[in-house]
Amino acid sequence: MTAPPAPSALDRERWRRIFDAVARPKPDGSLDGLLLTHAGDVMAVSGYAPLIERGQSPFAWLDPVALLWPDDAVLIVPLQEHEVASAANLLPRLRTYEGYTYETPFDHRRRLTAVVLEELGAHLPRSGGSVGVEPDSLPIALAEEVAARFPSLQRVDATDDLAWARAVKDEAEIARLRRAFAVADAMHGEVRRVARAGISEVELYSAVKAHGEREAGERMALHADLLAGPRTAETGGNPGRRVLQRGDLVMADLAPRVAGYWGDTCSATTVGPPTSDQLRVSALVRAALEKGIERARPGRPAADLDRFLRDEMRRAGFGYPHHSGHGVGATFHDQPRIVPYEERPLAEGMVICLEPGAYVEGWGGIRWEVGLVVRRDGPEVLSSFPLELAPAAA
Amino acid sequence: MTAPPAPSALDRERWRRIFDAVARPKPDGSLDGLLLTHAGDVMAVSGYAPLIERGQSPFAWLDPVALLWPDDAVLIVPLQEHEVASAANLLPRLRTYEGYTYETPFDHRRRLTAVVLEELGAHLPRSGGSVGVEPDSLPIALAEEVAARFPSLQRVDATDDLAWARAVKDEAEIARLRRAFAVADAMHGEVRRVARAGISEVELYSAVKAHGEREAGERMALHADLLAGPRTAETGGNPGRRVLQRGDLVMADLAPRVAGYWGDTCSATTVGPPTSDQLRVSALVRAALEKGIERARPGRPAADLDRFLRDEMRRAGFGYPHHSGHGVGATFHDQPRIVPYEERPLAEGMVICLEPGAYVEGWGGIRWEVGLVVRRDGPEVLSSFPLELAPAAA
Repeated sequence: MTAPPAPSALDRERWRRIFDAVARPKPDGSLDGLLLTHAGDVMAVSGYAPLIERGQSPFAWLDPVALLWPDDAVLIVPLQEHEVASAANLLPRLRTYEGYTYETPFDHRRRLTAVVLEELGAHLPRSGGSVGVEPDSLPIALAEEVAARFPSLQRVDATDDLAWARAVKDEAEIARLRRAFAVADAMHGEVRRVARAGISEVELYSAVKAHGEREAGERMALHADLLAGPRTAETGGNPGRRVLQRGDLVMADLAPRVAGYWGDTCSATTVGPPTSDQLRVSALVRAALEKGIERARPGRPAADLDRFLRDEMRRAGFGYPHHSGHGVGATFHDQPRIVPYEERPLAEGMVICLEPGAYVEGWGGIRWEVGLVVRRDGPEVLSSFPLELAPAAA
Repeated sequence: MTAPPAPSALDRERWRRIFDAVARPKPDGSLDGLLLTHAGDVMAVSGYAPLIERGQSPFAWLDPVALLWPDDAVLIVPLQEHEVASAANLLPRLRTYEGYTYETPFDHRRRLTAVVLEELGAHLPRSGGSVGVEPDSLPIALAEEVAARFPSLQRVDATDDLAWARAVKDEAEIARLRRAFAVADAMHGEVRRVARAGISEVELYSAVKAHGEREAGERMALHADLLAGPRTAETGGNPGRRVLQRGDLVMADLAPRVAGYWGDTCSATTVGPPTSDQLRVSALVRAALEKGIERARPGRPAADLDRFLRDEMRRAGFGYPHHSGHGVGATFHDQPRIVPYEERPLAEGMVICLEPGAYVEGWGGIRWEVGLVVRRDGPEVLSSFPLELAPAAA
């Protein structure tokens, strides 16, 4: 597989697009700036995708932080990440702070805070101003220093506005998502090549992940509902020690993160030849999905698409106790959620996954999931693995 | 490999040990409770190791939270995690809140907060009381609700005390760490079997990780400095697209997380027969490490051990621009850090990694790292892979 595309003009304009969507149209006045702490938001505007597969970095106090202003933006990372962050960074500026060092005692909390305070001081109006923040990921260690230094600063919860601004993707993001979905395609192929009676779910997982990394040319974070047998009726779950048996259904819901963007698709495979019941249920789910794809059009409320898919499966005698889909991008569940309560309409440029399923206690479950771009002229499907219950070796 | 050991009495007493170490001996009076949000701290007291390899869960607002009191403790997780969390949970109680659901709009912030407020209300004295918190991981979304509901509650930064309380491991934790180090041992063996001219760093990484998962019987988070050739002089880095060449040094610093506990060891391998320079430098680093291991005794200041290792390598003509080691446990960098500024003494039951290295720009780098338990009668080394520059196939 080719290397990730070099940053384009569209990539470099993304932060302005998101800033304008979030900060400008507030009915109670516009925001002066945005202080981003949510990992997906920081990645989307900066293009910098730090390692997440190990949890919190031991060299930093916080994940990277970004500050956006009408005419300026900065990414802030610990010194250790300077080289990789500066190779990726799409924002006009990059600043570092000393994270963990062996030479002097820990002080990264104060050091990061000092940079953030300096940036706020250089951009906020003397009267106080207002900044959009993300309360779910903004730690009090940082927030309280900001409040102490800028007592008249107004802090506004920008969580939802940011999530919805990110829901619409630009073509440069869609190109990156195409790569992530192509990696997922390759992984579904590998499931069929590797799944066989006698291999454990964890072994299957490792092999499939390795294949995706070979395709991507990088180590990847991966969310995987990868399981087999009756447990597939539970709609998902981590790969475990269970050994695959002839007759098993294999569910592979694979979300690889490739250069910061997630693909997310689900396939079904049988160990040995499928039974007529397995074939029948698979075809029903596929038919519902394909009709749903056709209905993913700008202007249609997400709830309407959810209802359509849910009704299709219900009429066929099945329900599914989960959403019908979701946006995908710099997180693997972006807005919009395709759920009964989401009345907001789909819009051009949204990238969503649709994933109807059928689950029968004691028998198993089958879910087919693809990703697509909502386009004026009809959906562009991003995944190309076959929606067919082809058997793996028994 | 065998399954993780069933929880023992020691496992179930861990939260009390940590609570007593942190909450009891405060010079300004004891704390009434602890509100834990740091992932490693929550894992250590509860035994619950949620998936971290995908970043923030899309089904929850926060990572799991734990509350500790003198005679009670509770783990709080989103409903989706109830089954796995309750199988693992070591605390007297488990509570859930509804995280993401397809049926009703997002409200997990309020739902989690409600549970935390209820728990605080049931345990705090009427006069207000005091709770230890972790400001680096406590988001304002939760902290501000707590402050609004309990205006006279005193919030105390317990970050450092918790980290030091976790530095000393009980024998049940040491048993779990032994498993994690055994998985790392197996992975170093796989590096030697798989590394060869023509394979890329990423391919080597995937194969080695798959081998570790086979050993562990579970999918794992893994931190890996896994790289080859001149870049090894940079002391570490992510596996990339570089293809291994005959004569390369391969550096494999592998930290797998097995059932919540991290192993962390580093080996060196050559592609094809080692040169006499490579053999000489490897032997120097190994000799320094082995002398350092012998000096890892209770009562010795961490800085003293750091100085010893650093001086050994300096006398041999090499320095290394990183710490000499660190604690390891529910995070892969626990306290104590083996650094020049850490004057606190090593104590019985601490589990530390030592990792001297030698790096020469343009030539490469070699680091040997093992894990050990600080014991009264001398160190117990937890890793058993050979500290020898055995060649991989050229």
